[in-house]
Amino acid sequence: MRQIRLAIVGGGAGSFMGPVHRHAAALDGQVQVVAGAFSRDPARNAGAARPGERLYPDWQALIAGEAALAPDIRAELIAVLTPNATHAAISCAALAAGFAVLCEKPLARDRAEARAVAQAAAASGQPFAVAYTYLGYAMLHEIRARIAAGAIGIIRRIEARYVQGWLAEPVEQDVPGAAWRTDPAEAGISGCFGDIGVHAQSLVEFVTGQPIARVLADLVTCVPGRRLDDDGAVLLRLADGTPGTLVASQVCAGEQNRLEIAVYGSTGALRWAQERPGEAILSDATGAATRLSASPAMLNSASAAALLRLPGGHPEGYLEALANIYRALAAQIRGNADALTMPLAAADTGLRSLAFTAAVVASSASGGWTPVEI
Amino acid sequence: MRQIRLAIVGGGAGSFMGPVHRHAAALDGQVQVVAGAFSRDPARNAGAARPGERLYPDWQALIAGEAALAPDIRAELIAVLTPNATHAAISCAALAAGFAVLCEKPLARDRAEARAVAQAAAASGQPFAVAYTYLGYAMLHEIRARIAAGAIGIIRRIEARYVQGWLAEPVEQDVPGAAWRTDPAEAGISGCFGDIGVHAQSLVEFVTGQPIARVLADLVTCVPGRRLDDDGAVLLRLADGTPGTLVASQVCAGEQNRLEIAVYGSTGALRWAQERPGEAILSDATGAATRLSASPAMLNSASAAALLRLPGGHPEGYLEALANIYRALAAQIRGNADALTMPLAAADTGLRSLAFTAAVVASSASGGWTPVEI
Amino acid sequence: MRQIRLAIVGGGAGSFMGPVHRHAAALDGQVQVVAGAFSRDPARNAGAARPGERLYPDWQALIAGEAALAPDIRAELIAVLTPNATHAAISCAALAAGFAVLCEKPLARDRAEARAVAQAAAASGQPFAVAYTYLGYAMLHEIRARIAAGAIGIIRRIEARYVQGWLAEPVEQDVPGAAWRTDPAEAGISGCFGDIGVHAQSLVEFVTGQPIARVLADLVTCVPGRRLDDDGAVLLRLADGTPGTLVASQVCAGEQNRLEIAVYGSTGALRWAQERPGEAILSDATGAATRLSASPAMLNSASAAALLRLPGGHPEGYLEALANIYRALAAQIRGNADALTMPLAAADTGLRSLAFTAAVVASSASGGWTPVEI
Amino acid sequence: MRQIRLAIVGGGAGSFMGPVHRHAAALDGQVQVVAGAFSRDPARNAGAARPGERLYPDWQALIAGEAALAPDIRAELIAVLTPNATHAAISCAALAAGFAVLCEKPLARDRAEARAVAQAAAASGQPFAVAYTYLGYAMLHEIRARIAAGAIGIIRRIEARYVQGWLAEPVEQDVPGAAWRTDPAEAGISGCFGDIGVHAQSLVEFVTGQPIARVLADLVTCVPGRRLDDDGAVLLRLADGTPGTLVASQVCAGEQNRLEIAVYGSTGALRWAQERPGEAILSDATGAATRLSASPAMLNSASAAALLRLPGGHPEGYLEALANIYRALAAQIRGNADALTMPLAAADTGLRSLAFTAAVVASSASGGWTPVEI
Repeated sequence: MRQIRLAIVGGGAGSFMGPVHRHAAALDGQVQVVAGAFSRDPARNAGAARPGERLYPDWQALIAGEAALAPDIRAELIAVLTPNATHAAISCAALAAGFAVLCEKPLARDRAEARAVAQAAAASGQPFAVAYTYLGYAMLHEIRARIAAGAIGIIRRIEARYVQGWLAEPVEQDVPGAAWRTDPAEAGISGCFGDIGVHAQSLVEFVTGQPIARVLADLVTCVPGRRLDDDGAVLLRLADGTPGTLVASQVCAGEQNRLEIAVYGSTGALRWAQERPGEAILSDATGAATRLSASPAMLNSASAAALLRLPGGHPEGYLEALANIYRALAAQIRGNADALTMPLAAADTGLRSLAFTAAVVASSASGGWTPVEI
Repeated sequence: MRQIRLAIVGGGAGSFMGPVHRHAAALDGQVQVVAGAFSRDPARNAGAARPGERLYPDWQALIAGEAALAPDIRAELIAVLTPNATHAAISCAALAAGFAVLCEKPLARDRAEARAVAQAAAASGQPFAVAYTYLGYAMLHEIRARIAAGAIGIIRRIEARYVQGWLAEPVEQDVPGAAWRTDPAEAGISGCFGDIGVHAQSLVEFVTGQPIARVLADLVTCVPGRRLDDDGAVLLRLADGTPGTLVASQVCAGEQNRLEIAVYGSTGALRWAQERPGEAILSDATGAATRLSASPAMLNSASAAALLRLPGGHPEGYLEALANIYRALAAQIRGNADALTMPLAAADTGLRSLAFTAAVVASSASGGWTPVEI
Repeated sequence: MRQIRLAIVGGGAGSFMGPVHRHAAALDGQVQVVAGAFSRDPARNAGAARPGERLYPDWQALIAGEAALAPDIRAELIAVLTPNATHAAISCAALAAGFAVLCEKPLARDRAEARAVAQAAAASGQPFAVAYTYLGYAMLHEIRARIAAGAIGIIRRIEARYVQGWLAEPVEQDVPGAAWRTDPAEAGISGCFGDIGVHAQSLVEFVTGQPIARVLADLVTCVPGRRLDDDGAVLLRLADGTPGTLVASQVCAGEQNRLEIAVYGSTGALRWAQERPGEAILSDATGAATRLSASPAMLNSASAAALLRLPGGHPEGYLEALANIYRALAAQIRGNADALTMPLAAADTGLRSLAFTAAVVASSASGGWTPVEI
Repeated sequence: MRQIRLAIVGGGAGSFMGPVHRHAAALDGQVQVVAGAFSRDPARNAGAARPGERLYPDWQALIAGEAALAPDIRAELIAVLTPNATHAAISCAALAAGFAVLCEKPLARDRAEARAVAQAAAASGQPFAVAYTYLGYAMLHEIRARIAAGAIGIIRRIEARYVQGWLAEPVEQDVPGAAWRTDPAEAGISGCFGDIGVHAQSLVEFVTGQPIARVLADLVTCVPGRRLDDDGAVLLRLADGTPGTLVASQVCAGEQNRLEIAVYGSTGALRWAQERPGEAILSDATGAATRLSASPAMLNSASAAALLRLPGGHPEGYLEALANIYRALAAQIRGNADALTMPLAAADTGLRSLAFTAAVVASSASGGWTPVEI
């Protein structure tokens, strides 16, 4: 299998996401970074480049420059790692220029932008994916498959949360990424929910296979002076009426990436926690709780097992989850549709997150139930 | 220490609560059952009595009969274990007749009844307690004390749940206790929330030391044909504005007594789960999570440690929790105010649960925020 | 059911074991303390007595005094809670005088003494049991039954441990019970193994249903100046050749009562830990690990389920385990052989522990494999 | 940083180790595969190669061929992934030809071979490491540093185990890698202990900083017809007399890679389990047990934290552990001695494992204590 040529926008020296995408892209030897516009700051831009990579001063130059190269040299895939505000513009431009795109979440600042990306993707015919990294974990695919197969009967209730503590204090000026995530101009209408609440929302919709239909929300701005929510909770109903709760917070001290879900059913329950991503707890109608591990022998779903690289007992982690997304995109770009890879989150999935965030913000303002409308 | 003489109303042969109270009352050798009106069914009444116990056909006869006995023979304490509908009437009558009372929760069917009990207790001057058994666990007293002492800083968010599965199917006719708990005439305005949601509510208020001020609720009747909620979720705010969620369900298959709380703060978090009642998890601002055990060496609070009967490493359970309530009541009846026993849940605490339930029901109907008013 | 009359020898004011036996005896309302020789120290003796109990200055006086009383008044059962050195003498005398006996472990200081008790028990025809309290946990009976039924196939390997920390420092003079447990004159030929190693040994033999046939031991006296082992480890083989390890220590700081066992088999494994006594982990041939709880719905064994007092989700603990022993003894004394109670550890079980300890001490001295001979 | 050029010997199509090393080498973008002799079977050899890699029919050809290339083209590092029997020969030849070497464990079949490799490494001056992958986990470096800094006081006792189940049945002909691991001609004098017991041994020596001085062993061949041990247990003493136990098995059904260690000390204890490699449990003298996570905020050791690629809450796994070894080797080959990378296991560490295995085999045969002699 030949390597897919990747160009990266964003992820300048010192960023979190830059190295993460580099590691994940490299892991399977299927993707090679050939170009980058890592930062508008020249030093951070140069600092993130590696020998042999083509360096551009900004994303416009990158798209123009790569598009002008010979087809067997230029990048095929562009990864968009910038702050939220430019996701849609870069994605649309890249798609229009004929590149495949992997865009970090959230897909855009609002639904209108997201719809534009969806249209651009459809128009271009190029592979397009939103990087919901957590959905790359093999165990989540197993959970989704088991629920679909009736392992816990009819879903009765959902509890989802994503609780962090890194914004527990007013660290906007000190911690990288804190400033723009709390700035409405950069982040959009929501802070915490737009940033991480949508991970919980996408997790709920992924494992249940159902959209969230309406929400009753209570957003909180805990740290004085902050202009967006940094905490909140939501009562929700899925399309079929199933009730649930979704909590997101960035101000709970000491919490790291507590992204968790419990799905209770009429004959059992399933639980998963991102900080032990290779485990799931399946309980039956007697209450006996079985811990499954991400081992081929314990996964019923062949497509979930195909997302593992190692035999049972050898833990895989976050980078492997993102690498699964790169591997699937690479297969799509190569055109080998038969490859047993994960389904990718397309623009409509990204749009759903923006619709959810909009509904949450509206519900919290009105104090009443609000439909999630795309 | 002399034994306190106890009369039991309810808890007939085959019931859950009768043996539980007998075990708990017996555990410390401080309380002796002397009389009972265990059931209006003569066979179940006789079947629950033990040799030497005075048996009455109903609670009215018991109160009258015991009151007529000599002071050194008659019961001093009456335990009320009947279905909800008669809690208030029996409690009021017993208090009026000069008995101390331990009443199972919920204290009454509604706030008016609960206020009547509170007045009767005040008028009689007798010890009165509501049996929030879970609040008898030593570790909860430690958690309350640590939170009050600032162990996790300012409380930022609360998650509480009480999830069961025993009503996952329409078992009303088959499972003891299911019929009256789902019958508005017996149970009152709420099924699940009145029965177990109030345990989660009392837990939240106990460990935070704050009342729940308002709620935004979504009650569910999951099993077709049921006339009361059997599931639901609540967004809540404490008196100081702290946000939280509270989930209660009796239709999540396989769940047993998943009564749990997480209190997130500005410098750490504390977690507790009833099914491992002797453990608590205290995490600090780095995320390091310390598991405390109900061992004297690990408890900071002397009054929490006084609720333990055993050295570290020897697990105690549910019966010990209820026995702590009996021990505290016995000390109060004896008048040894200095005894290091647990604070009892008085009628005002019982009233708070009814106010919470009423607010939840009202909020779910209106779809809007509703104050909790006693 | 009438109450069985109990006399207690040992357990003076300030002891650990005295209150433990009182709580456990009281829990089910089937046993009533009527007499005691709690301590040879008059103050500690009187301090442990309760109103109405007959108090004797020493065990000889108690046996003589009770034996002289009318059959419907005198004690029926004598609990022996003294230090090891007097276990056998008191047990023999009590049995000879026609009392049933519950003797704390170890049954005696050595095999000769233990054989004498076994003979006395046989001669008297009275119920006799050694208080291996941990064997009173319902879940262990379930584990034993599952293993016997082939739940994990053929046993391949055993790991057992009992690790404590309370003797991590030379606290002999400060901590109650430390002095005699480290004194050869009181404790016998072994400290740690005689005291707690035998709990692990009895656990191994109970759950596997097989005796330990031979041992290869390495005993350690960790704290300078101590005269007996306070730590050690053993390689062992069961009668059928199954290999295992057994670790016991009292010098591992911070450990409380880490009594644990793992039984690995040809198709799965079972694990149990005393500090969460109501749980067991059963893993299957794929590695999926199911946590069972001590709930009637999750126990296959009716005789294990009969040891529970509460429905699932209501934790029981150490006192309930000892209470199970009292309940079984009471049934035996009453002669209701049909009662579904636990099998009691008779004198031969106590003898096995002494044989194990003797073999461990001999093996550690010789450095070679040593048979366990009763 | 330029990429180091890697040649791989072994790891033909279908092997476990080939892809593992490829993933790990690729993860950081610091190592590039340029050549391979993946298998003596031409199809499996070709099947493992990727475009642009130089393919050789056997390791002799690879060493000769690469050595003949220009210095800026030829491989700098040779990874030896063959069965045990050829480790030493290939390593010696590669070192003699001027290549750096990463050799899979065990380093050799016996001590004589291992000493030869040590001499070859010393003579060549080339970087040389044995791939004890598990020692690449960041948390183990933290544990080692904490123990060295006195976090648990003086070590009192060690428990180590490596329990697997993949050889629970006679699968020699069916499962890749099973045949040679159970064949004395390929594997050497020990099966289970030579293969995985040494992982536990190296873990013990790594975290304590002390060699195992002597052993008392009981090896087992559980599956009939097998010619080497497939299970066993060892009592051990470290150089300073500290006692411990070490269990290794490949016949415990359902176990995957249960490599675990508990180090008990005079003021606390530390625990680690490979299947949750980013966690450690540190208990203090009261028994409070703190779960540390592999997050920069929770690691005291800067050199441990340098082995992480991600912020707290983003799990890393087995591939990252091996990648840490590659990253350290790459730094050594580049000559940047200041890089904060992990210390590598040199030939003397590999020799220690062979000495341990030899002592275990001898002790099990004699039934007596046996010194570990290098």
